[in-house]
This record gives sequence, structure tokens and C-alpha cells, in this order.
Amino acid sequence: MNLSELAREIGGSLEGDGRIEILGVAGIREAEPGEISFVANPKYASDAIKTRASAILVSNDWKTESSVSLIRTSNPDAAFAKAATLFYTPVPLPQDRIHPSAIVSEDAELGTGAKIGPLCVVEAGAKIGAGTIISAQCYIGHHVQIGENCKLHPQVSVREKVIIGDRTIIHNGTVLGSDGFGYSVDEDGVRTKVPQIGTVQIGDDVEIGANVAIDRARFGKTKIGNGVKIDNLVQIAHNVIIGDHSVIIAQSAIAGSASLGEKVIMAGHAGVVGHIHVGDGVTIGARATATKNIPPGEYLLGHPGMPAAKYKRQQAGVARLSKLKNRVKALEKTVSMFCEKL
Amino acid sequence: MNLSELAREIGGSLEGDGRIEILGVAGIREAEPGEISFVANPKYASDAIKTRASAILVSNDWKTESSVSLIRTSNPDAAFAKAATLFYTPVPLPQDRIHPSAIVSEDAELGTGAKIGPLCVVEAGAKIGAGTIISAQCYIGHHVQIGENCKLHPQVSVREKVIIGDRTIIHNGTVLGSDGFGYSVDEDGVRTKVPQIGTVQIGDDVEIGANVAIDRARFGKTKIGNGVKIDNLVQIAHNVIIGDHSVIIAQSAIAGSASLGEKVIMAGHAGVVGHIHVGDGVTIGARATATKNIPPGEYLLGHPGMPAAKYKRQQAGVARLSKLKNRVKALEKTVSMFCEKL
Amino acid sequence: MNLSELAREIGGSLEGDGRIEILGVAGIREAEPGEISFVANPKYASDAIKTRASAILVSNDWKTESSVSLIRTSNPDAAFAKAATLFYTPVPLPQDRIHPSAIVSEDAELGTGAKIGPLCVVEAGAKIGAGTIISAQCYIGHHVQIGENCKLHPQVSVREKVIIGDRTIIHNGTVLGSDGFGYSVDEDGVRTKVPQIGTVQIGDDVEIGANVAIDRARFGKTKIGNGVKIDNLVQIAHNVIIGDHSVIIAQSAIAGSASLGEKVIMAGHAGVVGHIHVGDGVTIGARATATKNIPPGEYLLGHPGMPAAKYKRQQAGVARLSKLKNRVKALEKTVSMFCEKL
Repeated sequence: MNLSELAREIGGSLEGDGRIEILGVAGIREAEPGEISFVANPKYASDAIKTRASAILVSNDWKTESSVSLIRTSNPDAAFAKAATLFYTPVPLPQDRIHPSAIVSEDAELGTGAKIGPLCVVEAGAKIGAGTIISAQCYIGHHVQIGENCKLHPQVSVREKVIIGDRTIIHNGTVLGSDGFGYSVDEDGVRTKVPQIGTVQIGDDVEIGANVAIDRARFGKTKIGNGVKIDNLVQIAHNVIIGDHSVIIAQSAIAGSASLGEKVIMAGHAGVVGHIHVGDGVTIGARATATKNIPPGEYLLGHPGMPAAKYKRQQAGVARLSKLKNRVKALEKTVSMFCEKL
Repeated sequence: MNLSELAREIGGSLEGDGRIEILGVAGIREAEPGEISFVANPKYASDAIKTRASAILVSNDWKTESSVSLIRTSNPDAAFAKAATLFYTPVPLPQDRIHPSAIVSEDAELGTGAKIGPLCVVEAGAKIGAGTIISAQCYIGHHVQIGENCKLHPQVSVREKVIIGDRTIIHNGTVLGSDGFGYSVDEDGVRTKVPQIGTVQIGDDVEIGANVAIDRARFGKTKIGNGVKIDNLVQIAHNVIIGDHSVIIAQSAIAGSASLGEKVIMAGHAGVVGHIHVGDGVTIGARATATKNIPPGEYLLGHPGMPAAKYKRQQAGVARLSKLKNRVKALEKTVSMFCEKL
Repeated sequence: MNLSELAREIGGSLEGDGRIEILGVAGIREAEPGEISFVANPKYASDAIKTRASAILVSNDWKTESSVSLIRTSNPDAAFAKAATLFYTPVPLPQDRIHPSAIVSEDAELGTGAKIGPLCVVEAGAKIGAGTIISAQCYIGHHVQIGENCKLHPQVSVREKVIIGDRTIIHNGTVLGSDGFGYSVDEDGVRTKVPQIGTVQIGDDVEIGANVAIDRARFGKTKIGNGVKIDNLVQIAHNVIIGDHSVIIAQSAIAGSASLGEKVIMAGHAGVVGHIHVGDGVTIGARATATKNIPPGEYLLGHPGMPAAKYKRQQAGVARLSKLKNRVKALEKTVSMFCEKL
């Protein structure tokens, strides 16, 4: 594809030689001749000058001089994502509708174009929507329902009765529908398992990373809304509800029966304790914990979590503690001099 | 089952119409007519009034008026667990003793009623006790011993020589017996692997969540006591010992050669450093870390962990730091006035 | 093997009866007659006196009297590792070159002595080096390259195009090459997936624990250097670079595009935020987070991370806050007496 064609495909305006052949995309520092890169932030302008890329995607108001051809767009980040898609050769789809080594129940239903990879197990009553790809070695339990055009990467476990929407992507090693952590405790501290008879419902356009664990509800459903993105190694307990378009970064954990509104963001290692509600648009910072109901739009830091401004003020106080101590010492000295004088 | 029969089954006393047909259990807010729910805490009394459930399980001293039938018990939580069991339709057991697709060594032993699911691998010398179910795609290594009436969910990895007791449940993706993290280090900081030739021993009535990792001992055994409950994504290092009936919540970690007494509770993201002992009945709060030997019964908060009262006092001090600073400022002002006067 | 032979094999000097038959190795407290143990630290001298072991490995300058035979070496820890190797009976290697139940593409290449275990999937274009063992139920994606004499334990997922060096060990449940967590966000907070078209490159002599997740690069490579050791349940995001001989302890996380120098150590639950550089030889303590570029050799504690000495000073200040408050109170009392007098 030459640069003019690429500019047209991604809706940008060309500045420079449109006949240059573009073979791929790459980061501004790693790019080789024949590749296109992008710079969104003016502070990387020097990288744009030194790059070996044949062309760069920049914003409409990009000012830095450059010896290479440019494509200007209103959103270089999104345009680059489009360009990357154009050059990406995906892994070939499985050829068989059901790989001969897969163990698929006769009572499972497969939509048009759905495919089951090698060494999968699909149990009775499972329904897999049109165009959905179940990659190698996945486990699809009894009466699981998966929507259309989903992609399950290898070695995903979907336990019985779990429901997954359309266009949802699930990465390797993730477990959906493991039992919630629920026990009754006797006076001696001995625990008896409470059956976890609910399930998990995942929305449309969700992506779930690798080695995530999402527990089924004690009864009812653990619910993951539409457009939610979950990173690797996240823990989501029984009966949790996550609102649409929320984002949960790696190693975060949400305890049982907590609910998150829409567009909540949990940074790395963040936490939400059980039975509370986190309002729409809340951001929980890295290693911060929501420990009580949080109003919409709040930005939380610390453990226990508090409004970011308050947290920063407290931490600034801690950082200046030795100065404060010195001021107290000086006062003590002055005051003791008074005592001697009086 | 009608309500009288249910009351009898769970050992409660009926108050209302015993002929009502009960079809299932549900949470107090989600319940539909035909279902029974429960309320243990008086603060949810308003939910009990508004519920659409046909009956509610309550404590013997429950006082709130209710339009629906009641079953009173001394422990509504435990009674509800029993009721849930009565209405739960479990996933059908595998029909084959050994699924034809499983790869089971001729030198493995299977007790009466034990079953091996599809696409499992069971290596030579493995012994699987009577009534134990190994679900699809599990790996059971050489000379593994699993007791009676255990349930391994799909895709569990049990490495060579690991020993598991009776009635133990292990969820998907969990790894038992991976090598401990042990290296010798030379002067250049280059590490050489120390063979991890010990194993893991899991007790009776243990439950282990999804995607947990329990390392084998360097030599000897990593030991998980009877009745221990381990949540998802927990890390247990080589040579750790966990006493009976301890509870380890999600994403906690216990470092090498640490030992926990009986009935220890680790809340979410909690930690225990290596080579220390945590006494019986200790609770380690969320994100708290035991960094030295902890006496029995202690309640630990903070990192490094300290007695909860001390931690709360320190945190209260931090929260009032700006007030303290203002008091110092006021003192400085007053004292400087003195200085001028004198 | 008798003790003289053992001393010779591990390069130590014998002190005592060389004819004693040694059958195995064990910890100083667990050892039985017929076993050899070791003591490196003088504070465990009392264990050396009480041990039931038939011999002990000690340092050249070990002084404690002992009734059992000794082998002295300059590095008892390393010598013990050697001894453990001599007595370790490894799990038998797979007998088949390719187990008949494995699904291996005709377009995959296998080096001399490489073996593919039962129920593995090896996709087209994969190259597996001489002597490398792929254990049961692993997934090896399209065009993956694995070097010589590696060991993949059961149920490892290696996604398309990932590159692994020589003598690298990967434990069960680990995922290499899952998609990076990358989205473009529109004004409504709705995320669109950015294709993750890079890959992961793992060096030589690396060991990666159980249930780890290492994401592929957005483009280019996520790189793990030679000799790096990664513990269980670690998260490594897209485009991260880890220098040679670094050590990452359990449940640590490194965010996207961060780079670590050589011989960096991250303790348990440690973190590195995205797009920063952590210098050679830095240690990040347990639960500490590197939040900006860190110069070589720094020892970081706290969240946000700061030099250990500074952090400890701050924490000491917090611990003494109530004393400081009492001093302020005493000053206020004295000063108010002045006010009355003047």
C-alpha cells in the first residue's frame, strides 16, 4: 500500500510523497524505512526528527519540521490503530468447523461459521453463536451460552451456565464461573461450603485478559457490563456487578457483592471491598481501595481510599514531618528560655 | 417441596402457610414468588418487608412484621446454605469411568467410583481415591496421591508427587507443586537453579480457588492443613505451612518457609514474609503484611503490619496532621510576639 | 554414594568418617540418619548440634562443635544445591518424540531429541529446538520459536510468534503473548481495541513461575533478558523490557512500556508504572512502586517509591506522631500560662 492510499484509508491528509510504499507500522524509535510511525505528544518531537520511518502520523496542528512525509489527522492515536489493523496478518482461523480431536457434546449448538479448536471440550446444552471462535484446549461447560463473533483464546475455562455476549474476547488461562468464596462458619471456626448456584453474565464487546478469575454468584448473577475491559490476573468475586465501559487494570480485585457504576477505572493493584457501591466515572488509583460507597466522579487514592486531594495533602504532611518536628524543637528551646527569664 | 417439608429438612420452625410450594432460593431483593430467601441482619428489615419471595428464613428472635411466611432458626445463614443445597441441580457427573480421550497411564490406580474426564492426563504411579472426580483437561503428574471424594474442576495442574486429602475441591487453572523459587547467586548476581525436590501436601476438606499457585518445597513439604479455604489468585511459596481451618482471601501471598497457625485469616492482598510464624487465630487485614513472628490472636493492619489499634491511632494522627501544623503555627506566632515584647 | 565421594563431587573438604552412606538431602530440622543437610548461618548453630542428619555441609570457617561428619566448602548454599541435584530423581521424560494424542502441525519443526507431550497443540510454523521438552497439554502457537533444552511444564500457553531462548523453564498455567491492554477511547469513554501486533521475546536461562501473564507488544517486542527469574502470578505488560539477571517476585506487576535495567530485584507485590526506566541493580521493596525514572543501585520503599532511608525516616516520624502532639500540647499549656502572666 502506498502512502496516498493509506492516508485515504485512515482518513488523514497527506503531506509529502504519496508514492512511498508502506509495508508496516512501528514505534517511532524502532521504525525502519518502509514503515509508518506516529507521534501524538509534542515532547517526542525530537524522536520524530531522528526517526528512520518513511512517514509519520501526526495531529493537525503538529508544527515540528520533519524530513519525512506526514499524514495529519485529528486523532493520530486512533488513526495509527487503524493503520496497524491494515497491516496486521492475523493467525489463520481453524479450518475445521469442529476439530476432530475436540470433544463436543451432541447436545451442543453451534451457530453459522462458529469453530471449535483442537482438544476443546464442549459440554451438553452449550450454545455457541455464529462466527465465534473457540481456540484450542478451551473448556465450555454445560448450558454455557456464548454470543456471536466472540474469540476465546486457548485454555480458557467457562464453567456451567455462564452467559457471554457478542464480540467478546477472552485471553488464555482465564476462568469464568468458578465457585464464589462462600462458607458458613460454626463456633469452632470450621467452615461449610455454601453452594454457589448462581452464574456469571458477561456483556457485549468485553475483553478479558489472561489468568483472570471471575466467580459465579452465590445465587443470581455476577455481571460484567458491555464494553468493559479487564486486564490480566484480576479477581472478581461472586455477585459483583460492573457497569458498562469500566476498565479494570491488572491485579485489581473486587470483593463479593460490590457494584461498580459505568466507566469506573481501577488502576493496577486497586481494590474494592465487598457490599459497597462505586459510582459512575470513579477512578481508583494504583493500590488504592474503595472501602465505602463512593459518589460518582470521585478520584480515589490511598488505603483506605480518600479523595485524591485529601490524600496528597496528608502525604505532603508526612513528607514534611521532620520539618514540623524541628519547628517544635525550636519552639521548645525559645519557650524554655522564657521560662528561665521569667 | 412445600414450606413445611423445607422447614423440617433444615430444622427450622414454620410460621405461616406450610402448603406453599417452594421452587428455589434467591437473594432477598432478587427473589420471585415461589422462592425462599433469608435475612440475617435486622438492618435489612426493610428488604424483608418489600421482598417478592414466598417465604423468608429468619433468626429465632426476628421481630419485623412480614406479610410472607417465615421459617425461624438459630442460624438463618447456615439454614439457607442447607436450603440452597436442596434446590441445586449439580452438573451431571461424567458417565465414563475414564473418558476415552483421556491419557491415563496403566500404572495409575483408580478407586471405586473415581472418574477421569475428557482430555485429562494421568501419569504413572498416580493414585486417585474412591469417588474422586477429575474433570476435563486436568493434569495429574507422576506418583500424585489424591484422596476420596475430591473434585478437581477442569484444567487443574497437579505436579509430580503432590498429595491431596479427602473431600478437597480445586478450581480451574490452579497449579499445585510448581517449583519453589530457589536459586544460588554468584558474585556477579547470576542465579543457578536449586532443584526443588520436595512436594506439596494438601489436607482434607480443603477448597482452593481458581488460578492459585502453590509451590513444592525445596525439600520436605509445603503443607496446607485440613479445612483450609483458599480464594482465587493466591500465591503460596515453597515450604509454607498453613494450619487447619485457616482462610486466605484472594491475591494474598505467603513467602517461602513461613508458617501460619490454625484459623488464621488473611484478607485480600495480604502478605506474610518468609521464615516467620503467624500464631493461631491471627487476622491479617487487607493489604497488611506480617513481617515478623505474630503472637496468637493478634489483629494486624498496615505494611509493615502492626496491631490494629496502633495502626488506627497512627492513621488518625496522619489525618490530623494539618491541624497539628496549624497549632504549631499559632504557637510560633504567639511566641514571636513574646520575643518582641521581651 | 558415600561421604568421601560426595565431598569430591561437590568440591568440599571432608571432616569425619568418609565411609558413611548418604541417601539423600534434607533440611537441618527434618533430616534423618542417612541424609546430609547444611547450615550457612551461624545463628542456626543449635540446629546443627541437634540434627539427626549423618553429615552437614558448612562453610570453611564454621566453628560450632558437631558430633556428625562435616563437609567444608566456601559456599555451603551452592554446594548443597549441587548435592541436591545428585540425589534428585527427575520425572521420567516422555517416551514418544510426539505423543500420539498431540496435535502437531506438519509445518512445525522439531530439533533432535525435542519431545511433545500428550494432548499438546503445536501450530504451523512453530520451531522447537533440540532437547526441548513440551509437557502435556501445552499450546504452542503459529510461528513460535523455542530454543534448545527448554522445559515447558504442563498447560503453558505460548501465543503466536513468541520467541524463547535456550535452557528456559516455564511453569504450569503461564501465558506468554496475550494481547497488550491497549485501546483508543472516544469522547464517550467507549474503548476500541488497538491491535497488538508485536510479540514477546524471552532470553536464555530464564525461569518463569506458574500462572504468570506476559503480554505481547503493541508493536515490536516485550523483552525478557537472559537469566531473568520470574516468580508466580506476575504481570508483565506490553512493550516492557527487563534487563539480564533481574528477579521479579510473586504478584509484582510492570506496566506498559516500562524498562528495567540489569539485576533489578522486585520483591513481592512490587510495581513499576508505565513508560519509566528503572536503573541497573535497583531493588524495589515489597509493595513498593517505582513511579518515575530510578537511578541505578537505588533501594526503593513505599508507594510512591522513595529511597529506603527517606521512607524509613518518614515512617519513624509517623510512629512518633502522638509524642510530637504531646509536645505541642505541653508547649500550648506553657505558652498560655505566659499569656496569663503577661
